[in-house]
Amino acid sequence: MAEPLVIEVTRGARVESLHRVSAAVCDAAGALVFSHGDTVTPVFPRSAVKVFQAIPFVESGSADAYGFTNRELSLACASHSGEEGHRRLAAEMLERAGLGEPTLECGCHWPFDMSVALDLARTGGAPTPLGNNCSGKHAGFLCTAVHLGEETRGYVEAAHPVQRRALAVMEDLTGSALPPSMCGTDGCSIPTAAAPLAGFARGFAKLAARQGAEPSRLAAGRRLIEACMAEPWLMSGTGRACLTLMEAAPGRVFAKTGAEGVFCGAVPELGLGFALKAQDGTSRAAEAAVAHLLAEMLRESEPALAERYDAMARRTLKNWEGREVGEIRVRRA
Amino acid sequence: MAEPLVIEVTRGARVESLHRVSAAVCDAAGALVFSHGDTVTPVFPRSAVKVFQAIPFVESGSADAYGFTNRELSLACASHSGEEGHRRLAAEMLERAGLGEPTLECGCHWPFDMSVALDLARTGGAPTPLGNNCSGKHAGFLCTAVHLGEETRGYVEAAHPVQRRALAVMEDLTGSALPPSMCGTDGCSIPTAAAPLAGFARGFAKLAARQGAEPSRLAAGRRLIEACMAEPWLMSGTGRACLTLMEAAPGRVFAKTGAEGVFCGAVPELGLGFALKAQDGTSRAAEAAVAHLLAEMLRESEPALAERYDAMARRTLKNWEGREVGEIRVRRA
Repeated sequence: MAEPLVIEVTRGARVESLHRVSAAVCDAAGALVFSHGDTVTPVFPRSAVKVFQAIPFVESGSADAYGFTNRELSLACASHSGEEGHRRLAAEMLERAGLGEPTLECGCHWPFDMSVALDLARTGGAPTPLGNNCSGKHAGFLCTAVHLGEETRGYVEAAHPVQRRALAVMEDLTGSALPPSMCGTDGCSIPTAAAPLAGFARGFAKLAARQGAEPSRLAAGRRLIEACMAEPWLMSGTGRACLTLMEAAPGRVFAKTGAEGVFCGAVPELGLGFALKAQDGTSRAAEAAVAHLLAEMLRESEPALAERYDAMARRTLKNWEGREVGEIRVRRA
Repeated sequence: MAEPLVIEVTRGARVESLHRVSAAVCDAAGALVFSHGDTVTPVFPRSAVKVFQAIPFVESGSADAYGFTNRELSLACASHSGEEGHRRLAAEMLERAGLGEPTLECGCHWPFDMSVALDLARTGGAPTPLGNNCSGKHAGFLCTAVHLGEETRGYVEAAHPVQRRALAVMEDLTGSALPPSMCGTDGCSIPTAAAPLAGFARGFAKLAARQGAEPSRLAAGRRLIEACMAEPWLMSGTGRACLTLMEAAPGRVFAKTGAEGVFCGAVPELGLGFALKAQDGTSRAAEAAVAHLLAEMLRESEPALAERYDAMARRTLKNWEGREVGEIRVRRA
């Protein structure tokens, strides 16, 4: 097995903490173009595969029936920050299908971004399902169910057609069988199914290269990726890693985070997909690793862009007084 | 080298993420009673050694000169949650020495505890140096400087007598030389010096067993530990791991967390000290590991108490809707 990427967190001249990250870069045929660490043991992709989960929303004709544009498609693939614009658009999607906030079964949480959470508290607000980072994905699920004449209640359960379709897309694109033994429950109550990193990378490569699955499925997935690249803020939020990564190469790089240190994505012009996971589940490790991985992928064809991603893979750490105390960086091989 | 403790984070029937934790349990002579992983490579102890850093505050006579009780001594060793009671007592300590909040050089941050931070935002508040989790430690530093007739400005710098005394105590108790090459800057701007886990464990064992250093130093350190055990909320905060660990065995167990996944502590009745670090710096791993380590230490002499710590080493994880989705647990050897 290849060595994992090691992300170092330094303080002064010493390494204080370190993280191990596994990563796979694949082409549409499933060949590993390069990798780090363990790409075989199944991992939960969490929110990093929201594009796969949203494919039935497009394939079913639901997204078009409600007249949705890139904005709604991006939000349907989002782990958003629950900012005002995210909440409002999720509400509008539900309204389009004649639904309201109470139909959402994702639960609610304070926004992950501290400044958004504090703003909400300052104005006397409280968490709502529309502010859940997954509300756009759930709005997509609900619109699809309504469009297909299905019961909306219980749409988060594994047995509901909405989740069965999402699982079938996942099996198709990853090339992995995903029986109940591979499934857990995600933060927003829908099933999440574990598969090898190489499977997720291959799935995104299929969308990048437009080959390896039914044309209608490839078209739906590619349309969602294009929507996310066109409206990256709706898929993420102010200051978020996904936004920074995609804004560095507008319309050319797709990168999506998932809880517990996961990233998946694609570089369409290279026909490549990728997936990575920090073994310990930390975001700071996954964020450094994804920037490094994009730099590795683009080093030959786009050295200047690769340098930008290299710079993102290194982050200065400051203390409460603003003094530089260390950095996060990829260990040199 | 012994295998590290492995902390597993599960989802459904699968392990989703895992953490490696090194740990040392020592007696006052420095003998390793038992250990996990690497106890030799120097690590930054961060706030887990605030008791050591507060020893000069007691040794110098400053704490007694200002009439401080267990409450102030505990706050001087605290990484507190910045709750109203913490902030008020830190202000009172400064007032006793004729100082005010502007003399604090620790910087400020929103309280780590989300509910405390949200309460502060709701009432129109903002972070202040008194709310910094280290404000009690800094108040102790400042009271000592004033008592000894030293300049207070720049008390966070390595060259200031306050920090030189703290470093000398650390070298004495850990038995490690701590030259500048071993030092970094902590979150609150004071130096933090890296030493082997076994050194920190030995230092706390000296205080537990009251042997291995000058009697006045042992008495000062022991008095601080007793104060923390008597007033554990002032050393931590509502719902915090340190508080739960110490409330499980009032007056019998001392445990203190530090940033980047560190815990240090002592079980005085066993004459043992301990120190641990999660290699990846995560709190969830360190918190599970410290409960497990206390259970291991107490298994023979106090099986019922050991069982309580075993239970704390295992934590159910729920999602936003309150569904059980997994757990944090120590991997069986």
